[in-house]
Amino acid sequence: MPTTPRLGLVRREAYKSLSRAPEGDDVAVEEPLEIRVAGDALSVTMRTPGDDRELALGFLHAEGVIQSIDDVGSVAHCGRPGDEGFGNVIEVLPAPGIVLAPERVVGARRGTLTTSSCGVCGRASIGDLAARCSPLRDDFRVEATALSRLCASMRAEQHLFARSGGVHAAALFAPAGGPTIVREDIGRHNAVDKVIGALILARALPANDRVLLVSGRASFEIVQKAAAAGVPVVASVSAASSLAVDLALQMNVTLASFVRDGAMSIYAHPERIQF
Amino acid sequence: MPTTPRLGLVRREAYKSLSRAPEGDDVAVEEPLEIRVAGDALSVTMRTPGDDRELALGFLHAEGVIQSIDDVGSVAHCGRPGDEGFGNVIEVLPAPGIVLAPERVVGARRGTLTTSSCGVCGRASIGDLAARCSPLRDDFRVEATALSRLCASMRAEQHLFARSGGVHAAALFAPAGGPTIVREDIGRHNAVDKVIGALILARALPANDRVLLVSGRASFEIVQKAAAAGVPVVASVSAASSLAVDLALQMNVTLASFVRDGAMSIYAHPERIQF
Repeated sequence: MPTTPRLGLVRREAYKSLSRAPEGDDVAVEEPLEIRVAGDALSVTMRTPGDDRELALGFLHAEGVIQSIDDVGSVAHCGRPGDEGFGNVIEVLPAPGIVLAPERVVGARRGTLTTSSCGVCGRASIGDLAARCSPLRDDFRVEATALSRLCASMRAEQHLFARSGGVHAAALFAPAGGPTIVREDIGRHNAVDKVIGALILARALPANDRVLLVSGRASFEIVQKAAAAGVPVVASVSAASSLAVDLALQMNVTLASFVRDGAMSIYAHPERIQF
Repeated sequence: MPTTPRLGLVRREAYKSLSRAPEGDDVAVEEPLEIRVAGDALSVTMRTPGDDRELALGFLHAEGVIQSIDDVGSVAHCGRPGDEGFGNVIEVLPAPGIVLAPERVVGARRGTLTTSSCGVCGRASIGDLAARCSPLRDDFRVEATALSRLCASMRAEQHLFARSGGVHAAALFAPAGGPTIVREDIGRHNAVDKVIGALILARALPANDRVLLVSGRASFEIVQKAAAAGVPVVASVSAASSLAVDLALQMNVTLASFVRDGAMSIYAHPERIQF
């Protein structure tokens, strides 16, 4: 399963004033990735190329299409290197004897499987999510000071952001020790899919002793991805949305937002955070 | 066509430390909106409720499903006030004698109409976009100092952001005079759809004497929406992506990013900006 190495940044000319010649600027790469399951196109996401296998696996896990790497026979870009557009379509094939059910994703995206009064308001998907998630660990604890420190450590690892100012990051860290996994992407959700996809490849789910940190805001989907991966604590550098708070309350996820400058606002299940 | 007034913010309890009681915090509302055209669900977007008609019209215009309000017979929420989930599904019906072609959106989202070598790399949609856009005005000019000032004016209008820290904004302003239209939403693309939708309702397209400003980053889709609306200049407070730059160069859109602190980086067609 070869992957094509791609740069996260490209060089573009930028005029800073009309009296000077344009300067070279590093710009974050945005390209579409079509994710296919056994020939069916499920989703097209605008992403920064790199770690595409992790992105595809993390996305399919959050949506409930795969439970572990044992469900997967192969994950690889379609076509051949050198083909036009090579690297922007990735296909996941099931392991022998496994039937994947991608229609739930297509249905959710098109809004055709759900009725207006339940699916669209999020109820069906919350019920579905609760049914397929293992209970999150109640005895997991993390120090508030460790959360604050992690933001600074993550920032130090945001190499694409440092050069372009235009890339989000997500990190999974283990307060009890162990390596921190950091991924960058032009889309926040993609960065989260990539870190969780890395754990899927390493057979390290459920990540029930990890904290998920995101560089931007916490949305419904980010809490959903964490809950599906067994992650008990989500922290965001910026704000949380109403649905993120409500889902975190319901799914027993600890949600801390505005984690910056030594402070934070904990919107759900504060008992896992120690001051 | 009644609309349901919705708040952009809700109150949630937040713990700032475990020794104090939780405080009330304003949190940006995130709820799904399903957009239907004549019964077919095209898209589900996570948005901040409010200006849903503008959002639906702006989205359909950018995707090429409608050209003007003359294509539209009605745009209204489905169901009745008081129904479960009311307000989260909106339907656009064609005007008498008009046939809307929403399958292009469904196809694009599912990746089924396009092949890997053209559609997914963006080529088919760029060709399609160029074919349906009127040429942008070459003689339009805006002062760099006016662009910088606009960022400050937009910030002063970001009332939801001021209270929650979690909402994007988009603004359309006319350097030659006229009111500035500002909309806020948890999604950047939604905020842009809302301002352009307001112009569609006012029969004010093409907006060929306007500048589109976005509070965050400039993506491919934001440049696409501007080009479809005839807007010759796009400015973003934060970074631009590679595809945003490439599309702006190709579609004759002026793209200025990092418009803050009196500076900017102009990635495409700087001739419309006067220093």
